[in-house]
Amino acid sequence: MQSVNHIGIAVKSLEATLPFYTNVLGLKCIAIEVVQAEQVKIAFLDAGNVKIELLEPTNSRSAISKFIAKRGEGIHHVAFNVQSIDSRINEMKEQGIHMLNDFPKKGAGGAMVAFMHPKSSHGVLYEFCEKKPLGEMDSD
Amino acid sequence: MQSVNHIGIAVKSLEATLPFYTNVLGLKCIAIEVVQAEQVKIAFLDAGNVKIELLEPTNSRSAISKFIAKRGEGIHHVAFNVQSIDSRINEMKEQGIHMLNDFPKKGAGGAMVAFMHPKSSHGVLYEFCEKKPLGEMDSD
Repeated sequence: MQSVNHIGIAVKSLEATLPFYTNVLGLKCIAIEVVQAEQVKIAFLDAGNVKIELLEPTNSRSAISKFIAKRGEGIHHVAFNVQSIDSRINEMKEQGIHMLNDFPKKGAGGAMVAFMHPKSSHGVLYEFCEKKPLGEMDSD
Repeated sequence: MQSVNHIGIAVKSLEATLPFYTNVLGLKCIAIEVVQAEQVKIAFLDAGNVKIELLEPTNSRSAISKFIAKRGEGIHHVAFNVQSIDSRINEMKEQGIHMLNDFPKKGAGGAMVAFMHPKSSHGVLYEFCEKKPLGEMDSD
């Protein structure tokens, strides 16, 4: 069965936010990465059983920028690990779920991801996230 | 170090929402409980490494009711496991964090909980959650 890969949190500035997560909560920052396609700079923090993903918009057209303008900084999405993202997208569509991505796209950390429309999931933005084992990443 | 205990999600109705989580996402509902002090009826779902907590307000004065009126259904909070909630509250206050609860209160599933003010945590409502081992619960 699936498990939660990460909790995505929209922030105005990684620089302004990271000290709270590392110094106050005591979490370790394990990666910082720019995802150009999503217009975000992200930081992954190790929260033990799951990761926390801080998302800073790199410009005002980013979905994260619009989210912050509308609702302020805060929890943006929850990502589930899946074995096969293609099968999961198809299963969802067969059940009448509206996917924001009918086809997987490249996300952070080399994962293939797809988002569900929050109207299909009672207001929560859920992401499916397929991460290839490290050995397979080079050959892709 | 700490880990995430659950992700709290505000919903208008458990009855209307549970089929999405159980039938579509395939998660198992492991408990349903009313927390009178919080004016919520909750359902816990097993998401593998963490739990998902659906919160339905039992009346219009519930904080969850106000959250839904303002922002709609959606992700409400993230709860961290802590070993000692008293020490954690003190640590936070020493670091200048504004706690919504200066003293632990009873939460769902027999846990003692305390919330951090979102103004101190860049817009995220974080909960600390101390769960006694099962053997100790009877003697409390």
